Amino acid sequence: MIRVAVAGYAGRMGSAVVDAVTAADDMVVACGIDPHGEATDFPTYRSIEEAVEAGGFDVVVDFTQPSVVAHNIDVALGAGKDCVVGTTGLSTETLEGLAAKAKDDACLFYAPNFTTGAVLMMQFAKAAAPYFPEAEVIEFHHARKKDAPSGTAVRTAQMIADARGFESSAPGKETEIEGAEGARGALVNGVPVHSVRSMGFVATQEVIFGSMGQTLTIKHDSWDRTSYMPGVLLGIRSVGERSGLIIGLETFMG
Amino acid sequence: MIRVAVAGYAGRMGSAVVDAVTAADDMVVACGIDPHGEATDFPTYRSIEEAVEAGGFDVVVDFTQPSVVAHNIDVALGAGKDCVVGTTGLSTETLEGLAAKAKDDACLFYAPNFTTGAVLMMQFAKAAAPYFPEAEVIEFHHARKKDAPSGTAVRTAQMIADARGFESSAPGKETEIEGAEGARGALVNGVPVHSVRSMGFVATQEVIFGSMGQTLTIKHDSWDRTSYMPGVLLGIRSVGERSGLIIGLETFMG
Amino acid sequence: MIRVAVAGYAGRMGSAVVDAVTAADDMVVACGIDPHGEATDFPTYRSIEEAVEAGGFDVVVDFTQPSVVAHNIDVALGAGKDCVVGTTGLSTETLEGLAAKAKDDACLFYAPNFTTGAVLMMQFAKAAAPYFPEAEVIEFHHARKKDAPSGTAVRTAQMIADARGFESSAPGKETEIEGAEGARGALVNGVPVHSVRSMGFVATQEVIFGSMGQTLTIKHDSWDRTSYMPGVLLGIRSVGERSGLIIGLETFMG
Amino acid sequence: MIRVAVAGYAGRMGSAVVDAVTAADDMVVACGIDPHGEATDFPTYRSIEEAVEAGGFDVVVDFTQPSVVAHNIDVALGAGKDCVVGTTGLSTETLEGLAAKAKDDACLFYAPNFTTGAVLMMQFAKAAAPYFPEAEVIEFHHARKKDAPSGTAVRTAQMIADARGFESSAPGKETEIEGAEGARGALVNGVPVHSVRSMGFVATQEVIFGSMGQTLTIKHDSWDRTSYMPGVLLGIRSVGERSGLIIGLETFMG
Repeated sequence: MIRVAVAGYAGRMGSAVVDAVTAADDMVVACGIDPHGEATDFPTYRSIEEAVEAGGFDVVVDFTQPSVVAHNIDVALGAGKDCVVGTTGLSTETLEGLAAKAKDDACLFYAPNFTTGAVLMMQFAKAAAPYFPEAEVIEFHHARKKDAPSGTAVRTAQMIADARGFESSAPGKETEIEGAEGARGALVNGVPVHSVRSMGFVATQEVIFGSMGQTLTIKHDSWDRTSYMPGVLLGIRSVGERSGLIIGLETFMG
Repeated sequence: MIRVAVAGYAGRMGSAVVDAVTAADDMVVACGIDPHGEATDFPTYRSIEEAVEAGGFDVVVDFTQPSVVAHNIDVALGAGKDCVVGTTGLSTETLEGLAAKAKDDACLFYAPNFTTGAVLMMQFAKAAAPYFPEAEVIEFHHARKKDAPSGTAVRTAQMIADARGFESSAPGKETEIEGAEGARGALVNGVPVHSVRSMGFVATQEVIFGSMGQTLTIKHDSWDRTSYMPGVLLGIRSVGERSGLIIGLETFMG
Repeated sequence: MIRVAVAGYAGRMGSAVVDAVTAADDMVVACGIDPHGEATDFPTYRSIEEAVEAGGFDVVVDFTQPSVVAHNIDVALGAGKDCVVGTTGLSTETLEGLAAKAKDDACLFYAPNFTTGAVLMMQFAKAAAPYFPEAEVIEFHHARKKDAPSGTAVRTAQMIADARGFESSAPGKETEIEGAEGARGALVNGVPVHSVRSMGFVATQEVIFGSMGQTLTIKHDSWDRTSYMPGVLLGIRSVGERSGLIIGLETFMG
Repeated sequence: MIRVAVAGYAGRMGSAVVDAVTAADDMVVACGIDPHGEATDFPTYRSIEEAVEAGGFDVVVDFTQPSVVAHNIDVALGAGKDCVVGTTGLSTETLEGLAAKAKDDACLFYAPNFTTGAVLMMQFAKAAAPYFPEAEVIEFHHARKKDAPSGTAVRTAQMIADARGFESSAPGKETEIEGAEGARGALVNGVPVHSVRSMGFVATQEVIFGSMGQTLTIKHDSWDRTSYMPGVLLGIRSVGERSGLIIGLETFMG
């Protein structure tokens, strides 16, 4: 039974982690850490220091804030506890510095994206790229999203370009008719990327490959923060046998 | 039994018309017209004049060339024969002029697109538009296509804009990150249109509507010129009871 | 400004109605009705009688329980208030009996499904059916759903069968190989219906039409109860000009 | 420059192979073999024996008939020529027997499916299976197809079942309502498989994986026999460096 401490258990992501860990057969919520948390049916602490002093857990899962995550990790690794971190805002240098001070072979695992399906979508796109002369990415996000294309779409396009090592033969912006500039999308490393925005989507992405007489489409839909949870559980199950800094959920997938 | 004369029966579209008419229960190929045609199991003529003189048919279906279609129609309507025309290149003025000289209440039916599914897609897009704050069009065509977006996509976007009578609230090109201009597509009357090009497609279009917590998608795929045939047969069946100029397959659909 | 009373405002659907009405420009939450509700920034009452006595509203929206909805409607219509009802469990006879006692031309509007996109999907399926020899329905719902196919899928199949008035020519269960019974789905009035179950879906349905060389697909995705809200607002806006019993959101759509 | 002999060059698949080889930069059609072939711009022979005697090629591509393929392979391998075979009907035992008599390290490559995208779809399905509690397969084929489900769908379901090693938790046939037997599809090794039939499809398959709040979909569309050609070219390029019997295009893909 893996004993899990949930930092930020009172927040939206933290409480989803509590639910997912509780529902899993092979792990248990050992305690929660949150300065704003209320009492619940597992022990709770106001700070990482209090939790470490009380002990009784193997792994800390941190979905807190950029302002506190580095401190949490520092204390936890210093006490030999493995860390599974989804809080963004830490540079690779900071992560390396933190991991260097880990005691007892503790592992620091950070992933920018814990959605298993999104990680597989990118791996499959990379694997398919050499076999298709053309590839395009379409991403669909909620109308509130402030930038286009999404970071995942840009990374996917870059991975495709790197993996195939040839230029697409598909026609480009020179075929756009007057007044319809943008129809062929944004070119990211030679891969057209299209962004759709609508209240009707949460986060969806399609990668479309074509060759003579056939198309191969890889599509991922996510409509809830629970989509992070299978990846978080995979991280919790994997860190015990690893040590040092590990970045990216794909490390634990095939 | 409707008796059909097929102009251009030796060409690719013409021979598909011959097959479709032959397979239908309520009509028959009365004759073929083509200066380059070989003998076959129905009477054939070198010109529309020869065919009209021989008689024995009710409707002419014309998928020929822009250079001869006007002459064909002129002679056929002058002999009181209904015309079903898919050859492009005739202006509305030309069509009106031709129809004005029709004898015996003959009907001139012209459609820029005979694909029933594409026509329904546009009608449904028009009907749905008022109920959704956001709409986008994605069209997918073969890499050989020389212009983007497709004419059907542009018409669909215009129909959506007219039908809804409000501005979309979705974010636009101002959200495109640097170096990724075009991600939000081409704005056609305020409706984003995205064009995908790949050897793997023939002709596909999706219209995506979104509102709170839901999306409605209308998609049409066509992979063969036979997709025109149900519309051609519908035209052949419908012109007998009509007269004068009729433009657009939607006239005969619901 | 339409003044709306929200019955069951403390429940999940009721609070979503409060949010949607508040966000709309042309209506306002006049009061809430809920025996279990807490105080909030609009007047609240424990019962429909208290609310009616206090007055100050034009329409009651009811997403409560089968056990109380009939009583709520009875009192509201008796006071001349229009009703927009999404609570299920009332027979057509009961609805007719309630509507018969309405005062002051009040309208009783009931809809089994308030999702605008789902209603349009069914209308479009009905309109397309006569033009395609084949149609199939695929519905995708959460793994917790206890019955297959969904009620919406069954209704859609029935509407297609009624609208087309011919038998599909697609091969049926006789083509299923040994040990693979069920591959061709359930036949509902001659229309194959397929049910997919997965944690990864909320509620999605596709209707797929095929004819020579083309397919037309109408797809609706819903991932949140907010997808009901555009339909609820449409109901609120429409009942003022109507009276008596009205069933089905399609009455107010085109 | 790889010199290719095309057996059955006058048939439909054979002539598509001729076109694809001709269009490729790194290979050339050295000769054609077909008892019914007409003269063309490359040397042609009536039999494999004549071709072998004339020589001047490295690889034979065989898309002929079950009745002649074994003889063709036997003669070609006996002359030390590599073989790329897509003709079906040969058992593994027969293939092994033929390969055993190959001279000069010739390679016998047989694939039941040369469509690169379909092969990748199956590989990706296998890779994704362990990460998702639920998986279903939907295949869409032309209404003329005589069996359901397709062989590719059955193989995909088996690969998923083997790769994940657990039982799906999705509800099964016990949730089908009365009169709707088959809604949950055919269970192939515990994986639901659904077959859609319509004139509007050639060959399409979707594999749908779900877990909390997300779905991953892998879809392959094929609408033309040219979809085999990238796989055939890959086979031609790969056999030169291999010897003995190789079955399955996946051997040469990643």
